[in-house]
Amino acid sequence: MTAAPVGSVLIVGSGLIGASIGLALRARGVDVWLEDTDADAVRVAVERGAGLPGPPGRDPDLVFVAVPPATAAAVIHDVLRRYLTATVSDVASTKTRLQREIEARTPFVDRFVPGHPLAGREVSGPAAARADLFADRVWALTPGAGTDPERAAQVAAVVESLGAVVVTTTPEQHDRAVALTSHTPQVVSSLVAAGLEALGSAEVRLSGQGLRDMTRLAGSDPDLWTEILTSNAEPVSEALDGLIERLSRVRDGLRREAGGAGEVRAALAAGVAGAARVPGKHGSQPVPYAVVPVVIADRPGELGRLFAAAARTGVNLEDVRIDHAQGRPTGLVELEVRPESATVLAAELRADGFEVRD
Amino acid sequence: MTAAPVGSVLIVGSGLIGASIGLALRARGVDVWLEDTDADAVRVAVERGAGLPGPPGRDPDLVFVAVPPATAAAVIHDVLRRYLTATVSDVASTKTRLQREIEARTPFVDRFVPGHPLAGREVSGPAAARADLFADRVWALTPGAGTDPERAAQVAAVVESLGAVVVTTTPEQHDRAVALTSHTPQVVSSLVAAGLEALGSAEVRLSGQGLRDMTRLAGSDPDLWTEILTSNAEPVSEALDGLIERLSRVRDGLRREAGGAGEVRAALAAGVAGAARVPGKHGSQPVPYAVVPVVIADRPGELGRLFAAAARTGVNLEDVRIDHAQGRPTGLVELEVRPESATVLAAELRADGFEVRD
Repeated sequence: MTAAPVGSVLIVGSGLIGASIGLALRARGVDVWLEDTDADAVRVAVERGAGLPGPPGRDPDLVFVAVPPATAAAVIHDVLRRYLTATVSDVASTKTRLQREIEARTPFVDRFVPGHPLAGREVSGPAAARADLFADRVWALTPGAGTDPERAAQVAAVVESLGAVVVTTTPEQHDRAVALTSHTPQVVSSLVAAGLEALGSAEVRLSGQGLRDMTRLAGSDPDLWTEILTSNAEPVSEALDGLIERLSRVRDGLRREAGGAGEVRAALAAGVAGAARVPGKHGSQPVPYAVVPVVIADRPGELGRLFAAAARTGVNLEDVRIDHAQGRPTGLVELEVRPESATVLAAELRADGFEVRD
Repeated sequence: MTAAPVGSVLIVGSGLIGASIGLALRARGVDVWLEDTDADAVRVAVERGAGLPGPPGRDPDLVFVAVPPATAAAVIHDVLRRYLTATVSDVASTKTRLQREIEARTPFVDRFVPGHPLAGREVSGPAAARADLFADRVWALTPGAGTDPERAAQVAAVVESLGAVVVTTTPEQHDRAVALTSHTPQVVSSLVAAGLEALGSAEVRLSGQGLRDMTRLAGSDPDLWTEILTSNAEPVSEALDGLIERLSRVRDGLRREAGGAGEVRAALAAGVAGAARVPGKHGSQPVPYAVVPVVIADRPGELGRLFAAAARTGVNLEDVRIDHAQGRPTGLVELEVRPESATVLAAELRADGFEVRD
């Protein structure tokens, strides 16, 4: 475990993110105090070992503000004034509007190092906090023009000591990026799912794994996402402009009969190029693994038996996808392995009695 | 294995689908002949045991036409004339335009039972064929107004004997359904991926599992998908009209500042309702499983060791998702189990030394 390059930290906001930062810093021997407008949140976070209840016994070296977006600017402004030597960082998921609010309000912007950990869970609150929440996750830092570079380096070092991977960019680039990589996909997933309302229950069965992938995000909490989208309204609406334009071009191509096929093909080809840029495993370009598809019965232990058999072959499973057949309790498990290992794995699984497809 | 309720079948088109139908029918004792304009395709399919080279030794009871969409109408017309007592079916992935072409060309529409197996592989050709390609897959049948109901029942029985689940609908409803469940998701995935071209290599790292899900389809073959989309141009362009309208409403809501938040929230809520209609496991509504998240090291046998340990607990794994951390060779495995089994599984995996997250 890395020692954190900071002595004392105040965390304002003791929810999932704040309490997880506290747990991670405590595990690295840092003095941590916790505050929250909700006394229960502080109590739970303290009980879990995330720090001591604030206010801090001395001026903290660093303050993390981990409150909801609506109150972030006021709280950041307040702590910059309260602790006149402390570095202050935050965790809000959009940065530009907040940066403008801070710059307009306070003369202390040199001590403000804005951040955004791309980490989370499907549950919230300090009870769900964990010390390893940020391990191997990207943590964006978006220092403003007035941010002291030494303060930015300090926050980067602390964040890296929690196991996160720092990506430094500007507030504007950050917000444009998450509009394209996170906010637009969320909107599109919701709207593709909403389109299914037009179908009868028999017709909706005419679907496969692709639809499940494309509508998984659509199950997200509408209130939370309304807050996120409206806090990044400009970049998201610009990203939607671009998407609407590309969709319209494909639609018009389809309506132009034969003459429009070239336009449709060009759009799909651009998609192939774009998909190749999506970070895959280990943050790099996706590696083309070989797929060994195995048919398994849906009964206790079948997956376990399969993976135990796979382990005996010594072949490393790079990825696993389970495609459930419709209407019947059987499933197809796709084991992804390095291409040179596929033949061995398939042969040994067959020898163990598994049904491996060609 | 179910015996097929048919004595002899001619398959025109010996690619992946045609040869797989042949293998499945041969396994059930049916006399099968294979034809193809490509003599090599017939040779490979025959070598794999999918049937004998055509023309058939006697008039077949049933003909499956499994040729590319562009030639389907001409071939269907031809076999309806060649074998005046045979039932003829096809496997084209869009139905309305083809149905109109057949009805305009031939007086024998009563013997034509159009079909579409929702099955496929990432590879093509008779070498990739397999007898179980249709097991537990939906196979749509779209009898026209002039189709003899007894012929439709005959094809349904044959298709079910291959293990498929028959969904009967009209050509128009079929095409509208796949426009929404398959063709629109493909276009959207491509265009979301294409939008990433605007990002630098650092910014594109500000993404998570959601983006990978949303851009997986974007890797598909542009030529194949251009053919599919143009063959269903009208329903797809109508589905895109609907999507563009919903996207525009969200974008306008975001531009209207505070006043538009209600519109954004309504769109996201409609997505939650739509997502609940996506067929999950066993063709039913998705069951809310409990998630047991386990952190594993990326080395040979780790997944196998985990699944072997899980098998020893006797708990059935309902699903598995592996989320790869960015930039580091570690991963998070989410084991999905029935809610009542989660505590037992987590405790026993911890006892076996695994890092189970709360």
